[in-house]
Amino acid sequence: MRTIIECVPNVSEGRDRAAIDAMASAVRSTPGVRLLDVSSDGSHNRSVLTFVGDAAAVREGVRSLFREAIARIDLRTHRGEHPRMGAVDVVPFIPVRGSSVEECVALSREVGAAIAEEFGIPVFLYEDSASSEHRRNLAEVRKGQFEGFGEKMKDPQWAPDFGPAAPHPTAGAVAMGARPFLIAYNINLGTKDLTVADRIAKAIRHLSGGFRFVKAMGVELADRGIVQVSINMTNFRKTPLHRVFECVRSEADRYGVPIVGSEIVGLAPADALFAVAEHYLRLERFSAEQVLETKLLTE
Amino acid sequence: MRTIIECVPNVSEGRDRAAIDAMASAVRSTPGVRLLDVSSDGSHNRSVLTFVGDAAAVREGVRSLFREAIARIDLRTHRGEHPRMGAVDVVPFIPVRGSSVEECVALSREVGAAIAEEFGIPVFLYEDSASSEHRRNLAEVRKGQFEGFGEKMKDPQWAPDFGPAAPHPTAGAVAMGARPFLIAYNINLGTKDLTVADRIAKAIRHLSGGFRFVKAMGVELADRGIVQVSINMTNFRKTPLHRVFECVRSEADRYGVPIVGSEIVGLAPADALFAVAEHYLRLERFSAEQVLETKLLTE
Repeated sequence: MRTIIECVPNVSEGRDRAAIDAMASAVRSTPGVRLLDVSSDGSHNRSVLTFVGDAAAVREGVRSLFREAIARIDLRTHRGEHPRMGAVDVVPFIPVRGSSVEECVALSREVGAAIAEEFGIPVFLYEDSASSEHRRNLAEVRKGQFEGFGEKMKDPQWAPDFGPAAPHPTAGAVAMGARPFLIAYNINLGTKDLTVADRIAKAIRHLSGGFRFVKAMGVELADRGIVQVSINMTNFRKTPLHRVFECVRSEADRYGVPIVGSEIVGLAPADALFAVAEHYLRLERFSAEQVLETKLLTE
Repeated sequence: MRTIIECVPNVSEGRDRAAIDAMASAVRSTPGVRLLDVSSDGSHNRSVLTFVGDAAAVREGVRSLFREAIARIDLRTHRGEHPRMGAVDVVPFIPVRGSSVEECVALSREVGAAIAEEFGIPVFLYEDSASSEHRRNLAEVRKGQFEGFGEKMKDPQWAPDFGPAAPHPTAGAVAMGARPFLIAYNINLGTKDLTVADRIAKAIRHLSGGFRFVKAMGVELADRGIVQVSINMTNFRKTPLHRVFECVRSEADRYGVPIVGSEIVGLAPADALFAVAEHYLRLERFSAEQVLETKLLTE
């Protein structure tokens, strides 16, 4: 696998085990695809599939998923707490290795056109693939949900990027788009004072003047008697972990508070960790091809 | 590949392209084996093959290599600058992921016994596999070379660990053993003064009181007008990169000299870089299974 693209489709089924298994197995049996995770939430009535492959494999994985999801899910009878507009609700394409956001934008357009054509489902490009600014935010795209989408799509502002001018009768519509890998990263502070975490969160997050690709908030870890700056790193290549860590350290210093630890929640691409080592060791001419495991994986 | 063991056999042929290719292809075509590199040196008349696999695959790769090497190499007519005692001269087994030095010691014993039995070649265990202290050092084991090995082996001190009491008539004898992954790591100093690099090398190396798993010397980089501490990290798990880097930084400080950069030469296991990120980010509960690429490779 020379290129690794991650695809994390959300489907509107989180209760019917047989249907979830059938969709997972449709993805898993696609040549070149590795299904890494399936998480289902009953109250949301929604499942998230995580799989990887190169562009061609991911495209086929998405097609297999749609085939199964359309056969299994009827949104007219679907109920759940999470907003949704489609049987396959949203399909993000995320570059991990050997691919760029730009290539994933191209892939989302290619897959979007193919899905619209094959299944007669309207496709809306969002995030970095969005065809105009008001379609970038998923919540905006999804507003109205399945029940309101027929009406919403009458507005020329909400014509689909691909496919028919009205939602699919049972499968609705789908949002597809490219975005960078998101890393959930928390930094733990040696104090009980939540205002310190809140102030530091404010200092580093984009919204209030901080780093472009950081979302953050203060959180209390009552069981440990400490507080945490809880962070979403939305583009670790442009805003790397170590830069945020050092900024938090400097801000915490000002309150006389130490960093007691930090934590990566869930998965991260190897490059995010390599960049940290490169920074602190001041590595010259380092390449991930020098790392035996990445070399093995991508050769 | 859940377990990754690296095997780096040295064979006594560095000139005959057809012979080298035949040996490389014998290894490459072994199921489960990935041949990463073949480096040949004409004046040494010697080639180094680098391949990886799990224990069973590596064992079969070594067997395939011996079959081809014995057919192709006759040490009675072999000339080259590098000392050698065997057609396959030395076979190191190196744990990279999901395996320990102890497991590689067991593997070297298993493969050694099998090779002795199948090909009638005496096998000497060295490094961490050595059956006694005086056999640990490869140079000691190889002393006498092919031409002197019949005589050397008459000494009970130099009875082989496996196989016949005399060298194979054309293929000699072989050293096999486990050792940790060796990382070649250099730290560049912002000075022209070689004595600073020499003193720092002395401070960090095991020989003169430094870290247990560090070999180091000062080197001049004339073209860049700087000096370098050139380091072999012989066990990055017990003596990690960041600890050596910080020690060099502190020693260099004492001379008012900055670290201008550092460099990993050749390959390194991902864990060596992850450990650096863990240290500086103070990561809690980090596991390589959280890294998408290592998860993909070893699942």
